[in-house]
Amino acid sequence: MSTPIFDNIRVVLVNTSHPGNIGGAARALKNMGLSRLYLVAPKEFPADKAVWRAAGAQDVLEQAVVVDTLDEAIGDCGLVVGTSARGRRIPWPLVNPRECGERVWHEAQQHDVAVIFGREDRGLTNEELHKCNYHVHIPSNEEYSSLNLAAAVQVLAYEVRMASIAEKEGKLPKFEDWDMPPANRDAQERYFEHLQETLEKLGFLEPGNPRQTMTRLRRLYNRVRLDQMELSILRGVLTATQNYIFHTDKKLKDAEDRD
Amino acid sequence: MSTPIFDNIRVVLVNTSHPGNIGGAARALKNMGLSRLYLVAPKEFPADKAVWRAAGAQDVLEQAVVVDTLDEAIGDCGLVVGTSARGRRIPWPLVNPRECGERVWHEAQQHDVAVIFGREDRGLTNEELHKCNYHVHIPSNEEYSSLNLAAAVQVLAYEVRMASIAEKEGKLPKFEDWDMPPANRDAQERYFEHLQETLEKLGFLEPGNPRQTMTRLRRLYNRVRLDQMELSILRGVLTATQNYIFHTDKKLKDAEDRD
Repeated sequence: MSTPIFDNIRVVLVNTSHPGNIGGAARALKNMGLSRLYLVAPKEFPADKAVWRAAGAQDVLEQAVVVDTLDEAIGDCGLVVGTSARGRRIPWPLVNPRECGERVWHEAQQHDVAVIFGREDRGLTNEELHKCNYHVHIPSNEEYSSLNLAAAVQVLAYEVRMASIAEKEGKLPKFEDWDMPPANRDAQERYFEHLQETLEKLGFLEPGNPRQTMTRLRRLYNRVRLDQMELSILRGVLTATQNYIFHTDKKLKDAEDRD
Repeated sequence: MSTPIFDNIRVVLVNTSHPGNIGGAARALKNMGLSRLYLVAPKEFPADKAVWRAAGAQDVLEQAVVVDTLDEAIGDCGLVVGTSARGRRIPWPLVNPRECGERVWHEAQQHDVAVIFGREDRGLTNEELHKCNYHVHIPSNEEYSSLNLAAAVQVLAYEVRMASIAEKEGKLPKFEDWDMPPANRDAQERYFEHLQETLEKLGFLEPGNPRQTMTRLRRLYNRVRLDQMELSILRGVLTATQNYIFHTDKKLKDAEDRD
């Protein structure tokens, strides 16, 4: 029923309040051939309500990985997609659920992929959304648009299964070939930290107030899907810059000491 | 016959040897509703052979803009696509002729777009191809793959026309909305110069030998389609870096003078 490609796809639920939704999500996953569930700081888990809603998908629930932070749940992934309502201030590359399924299925043949879902009441925070390569929006009735969490998981898991079928029939759209594997999320997050630190040392960013500029830089580098060699070039540039600052600072201090 | 959107699309022929091909290209353009032809350092132009092959498209030929360098022909464009044979060492984002037509037509509604064609015998140089956002490859018989220049122009101009028809019928694929217009080619080229200069001053690039690293950085920033605000942030980072280098150099020199 399941193939190794399905095993490269994980669904991540962030800060879920109601354990029933965790059970419902587990069931939706298993129905569609998926099995990897990550729970970031769930309010209540393990819980009887989760077991009850999971019905025959208790194995998915038992194997669920509980972590404290989103970074732990997605660090080794080469692609991260976050569910989002429309209309964020700085728009991110946006796919619909079908495109999401196709892209997730395509990339899962090469590396781990995460689809992340936010809190029942407030979704994902901006900071969480800025860790994503793409955002996905499930279209819904404008007058009644709040999808239940397990229902949202169901729709996106279904589209992954549809993509797996489309691929068997040779109907998956063609994706680009690339010469290098993508940098994983951990490597990208370390790059963003290194970048912000360097820009602060240069005086380009105020230590207290990096937000808008860093958000735009995050969007830029998340959107381009940095490959591993590109990331290492960019890290090299930051290291060269910091080395330059370190050595000139030292020389200036030595000169002052001589004065 | 023509609409303002067609007028935002230019075909650029680089270093054409045979004026007959220029005439043939002019005719192909006019047949498909296009009219803007740029000639970068043509070997022989104006020429009777061009007029003869242009047949009823002499107006396109007469309005053709002759320039010395590729940069002059594409500087104000927000999208540049270069025709390329397959199998370059560092692969660039690649589209097929249909995708090329759709993207060109879509973007021409917002800004100027260039499709560039190389020499009859050797195509575009790597340096020229590295100024492009996308490469386009016309599929052909592997045993007889050399398309005549005017024929290649014909195919890509035809796909632009097909896209214009698809749009009328509501069949153009959906492209992403963005909050900022793209940086034009001139601004991007100035960024690459600024970047290379800064990396050399930092000692990250050898002044004599920037090639492979700069090529990968060019690919990265061409692929991401930098918008105007992103470009201005990146330029700001370079300026801050150069200012830092300038001021510390000065301070160090002053300190030496005091010794």
